[in-house]
Amino acid sequence: MTDTLTPELEAVVARAATAAPAFAATTPETRARALVAIADALEDAKTRLVTIAMRETGLTEARLTGEVTRTAVQLRLFADTLVDGGYLDARIDPADPDFALGVRPDIRRTHLPVGPVINFSASNFPFAFSVMGGDSAAILAAGCPLIVKAHSGHPELSDATAEVATAALTATGMPDGTFQLIHGREAGVAVLTDPRIKAGAFTGSIAVGRLLADIAASRPAPIPFYGELGSVNPVFITADAITERATEIASGFLTSVSGSAGQLCTKPGFVFVPAGTELPAAIQTAAGTSDLPEHRLLDPRIARSFDERRTTILNAPGVTAVLPGSIRFDDAGHGWATPTIVSVSLDAFRTSAADLVEEAFGPLSILVETPAGTDLAALMPEFYEGNLTGTLHLSTAEATGTTANTTELRALVAALSQQVGRVLFNGWSTGVAVTPAQQHGGPWPATTNDTSTSVGTAAISRFMRPVAYQNAPQAFLPAALQDTNPAGIPQAIAPAGESHTWGTRWH
Amino acid sequence: MTDTLTPELEAVVARAATAAPAFAATTPETRARALVAIADALEDAKTRLVTIAMRETGLTEARLTGEVTRTAVQLRLFADTLVDGGYLDARIDPADPDFALGVRPDIRRTHLPVGPVINFSASNFPFAFSVMGGDSAAILAAGCPLIVKAHSGHPELSDATAEVATAALTATGMPDGTFQLIHGREAGVAVLTDPRIKAGAFTGSIAVGRLLADIAASRPAPIPFYGELGSVNPVFITADAITERATEIASGFLTSVSGSAGQLCTKPGFVFVPAGTELPAAIQTAAGTSDLPEHRLLDPRIARSFDERRTTILNAPGVTAVLPGSIRFDDAGHGWATPTIVSVSLDAFRTSAADLVEEAFGPLSILVETPAGTDLAALMPEFYEGNLTGTLHLSTAEATGTTANTTELRALVAALSQQVGRVLFNGWSTGVAVTPAQQHGGPWPATTNDTSTSVGTAAISRFMRPVAYQNAPQAFLPAALQDTNPAGIPQAIAPAGESHTWGTRWH
Repeated sequence: MTDTLTPELEAVVARAATAAPAFAATTPETRARALVAIADALEDAKTRLVTIAMRETGLTEARLTGEVTRTAVQLRLFADTLVDGGYLDARIDPADPDFALGVRPDIRRTHLPVGPVINFSASNFPFAFSVMGGDSAAILAAGCPLIVKAHSGHPELSDATAEVATAALTATGMPDGTFQLIHGREAGVAVLTDPRIKAGAFTGSIAVGRLLADIAASRPAPIPFYGELGSVNPVFITADAITERATEIASGFLTSVSGSAGQLCTKPGFVFVPAGTELPAAIQTAAGTSDLPEHRLLDPRIARSFDERRTTILNAPGVTAVLPGSIRFDDAGHGWATPTIVSVSLDAFRTSAADLVEEAFGPLSILVETPAGTDLAALMPEFYEGNLTGTLHLSTAEATGTTANTTELRALVAALSQQVGRVLFNGWSTGVAVTPAQQHGGPWPATTNDTSTSVGTAAISRFMRPVAYQNAPQAFLPAALQDTNPAGIPQAIAPAGESHTWGTRWH
Repeated sequence: MTDTLTPELEAVVARAATAAPAFAATTPETRARALVAIADALEDAKTRLVTIAMRETGLTEARLTGEVTRTAVQLRLFADTLVDGGYLDARIDPADPDFALGVRPDIRRTHLPVGPVINFSASNFPFAFSVMGGDSAAILAAGCPLIVKAHSGHPELSDATAEVATAALTATGMPDGTFQLIHGREAGVAVLTDPRIKAGAFTGSIAVGRLLADIAASRPAPIPFYGELGSVNPVFITADAITERATEIASGFLTSVSGSAGQLCTKPGFVFVPAGTELPAAIQTAAGTSDLPEHRLLDPRIARSFDERRTTILNAPGVTAVLPGSIRFDDAGHGWATPTIVSVSLDAFRTSAADLVEEAFGPLSILVETPAGTDLAALMPEFYEGNLTGTLHLSTAEATGTTANTTELRALVAALSQQVGRVLFNGWSTGVAVTPAQQHGGPWPATTNDTSTSVGTAAISRFMRPVAYQNAPQAFLPAALQDTNPAGIPQAIAPAGESHTWGTRWH
């Protein structure tokens, strides 16, 4: 069991495994207080943490400060989620001696933490998807010991964040081993393969995500692996929407593509627009009037990769630069970029698909000009399997669902609903609201598992497992399933005798 | 996309893919009526279907007749689940212009069918886990086109059931391609690897389940695979429970082990009892007074495999026969068995673990006699990773949670909760109630994925995927998320401004 782990990693996994039953036994309110303590501590340490993050990631102070707030809000949101208790999906089916299939026992079902989880953190959100980011908040909220594999892009920040979080967890009395940080991909893989680890989470590239998902699936005892990978986030804009508000759309688009130097998994990578609209000109006007400053890319590797993708795209047959943009490298090897926007006809896009469809991680987007009569609903599957988001921009009249093209638009919405995790209207996909109804996760290759979300409170279900209790004495039931319901959580109690009428309404 | 499929299978998958959007667009009430129509049609054809099933499986008329009823009940239960709508987990977070992280858009989230699904049916439940069994009911309820790979153990029954179901689906206006039946493992594997298939379900052996799960995970686009595999279903009985009601426990145990010739995934395979109790004698008495008839095993392969396991177990060092039982083969190669019960000390069980721990699929169970002071909570992980069920028999006093050993019993319940999907008290694990709170699925190798159930209404979530809509006009929202809520389903609507108070309760 321990032969693949170094002594140091063996100690890490052993501490997590030892913490598991004690942490699982904490009350939701206890864990809520621990999460809020971490949130408070991160905000108290904000100035120091942001200074380290700026140096390690090149992201701006405004962006990073906002990200600390978001990270704290996420932790506090999970605190409330925990105490509200709906996430437990507590179900109680009373016994029924007269049931059609014979005596029906008393059955009660809730969700329990799966056990120790490893979370591979992301580079592009050094707070919100890193050491104490959304996945970590969900894992701790669920009651699972957490091992974070730090991202190599911000090791010092990871250590500093871990120190802050550990102090808060200790101060609130959480068991030793509730949270630990490790460094290095090999260490992460070794931990992922250990039988005491019961689930994995990841935010990053398709290549690494697939590698880790395959490792998780091929363990002697396979475990769920929740990877959030790549996405090109298609946008569809109608001719009437452009006629109605070209300037507003152009400027929103540019902001979305250039924010955080385009290094967001929700950056709009492809925009399908009717051929011959004024949108390209409006984009040029918007770029000319606003200031498009250079942004540093996260690290030299990402910058070189973006430089290569940008050159390939600009040189592909049929591609026209709407905004050529730029990239330059400083003495430290860091790349500094301004946004590149190109356009291409649908025909040329098809011909050059090999050069164009792959995600360009950085400030670049491709307008694809579609001829009249194009079946928009059939378009994305031609090029791309799954995405985190899909967006529609409609005119005010089209939004009422009473225009001549309503059927066509509904078909497009239905198609996008099958292809993405979040469908947006008249907005931009960057900036993922942290709310109970959020869904951040779509079909492969957007994620390795599209049955859950990595943002929002529903993420807690990733790290829990349903367990039913049959004819259990009250003294041996989890609190969530007891008749006295001490924490007052929502219990779905089937009415007595309801099972005798199943299906009778539908003849 | 089609190069691995024969023309016949290509047609099957193409029909399912074509049916997907049309079937997904049916209303829950429409699908409810279709499920009830199938239930009615199966009950109308009961006599004919049971006759075929008796010949193909050797199971008794009483068992098979009851199983048709259970299958119909399952379909009807899903009909009600559909129309109640809680399974959609509809969430509405209203827009909030003053949110801490900036303007929060309107976000609404529901669940949509994943698309075509293949279900590999089981041999031991020719109705309830076969062509129109629980997985199939959940898949159709979710709105996913269904392809069933028939089990080779009952091909004629599979065809007859499919004919009945197809007629009901056609009569209720479901799209062509909503349900199709295929035969042969190679055909099943070919369909499972097709990119148009979005999930897989399976009930059967660990070896085949693992093979199929690995295929699903290693596809270019991986898909979820829900396999229900093997289980030994540990039972723990306290000394006081035996003192209180040895006769009742012995006779319940014998019934559970011998029913359906022990060919149930929930058969109690291991019973941990304190050394030196009267339980073995009580079992012999119960066997002597009741009639233990011979039962035919499902097919010659299963019978030969059981014969081999039984011989290995009877000959293992330290094993004593409580009831030796028997197996004989008829001229057609069918095996006929009576129950075998053995006992072994915990020490001998440890020594002979290699011979003893593997599931014996048939009427056999092993009593393991534990010395005083054994740490029962630590026992199962020594031998077995995950199980469908775990059972405790307590005395009346112990059930109150006020005896000297309560702490120890609570620790055992907590340990079982981590190791199984259903924890039972003072009952037997065979006979899985079909209810909303049921959980049939536990950690590997009980299942390939323990985050859901294969019995009960929660199974529908396996075949759905969450999708969020941001700032969507009412005209483009799914019915479940519209303000007018035409079907009256439960919507979790966040109160205005609630997000401003997140976490403030927990300082």
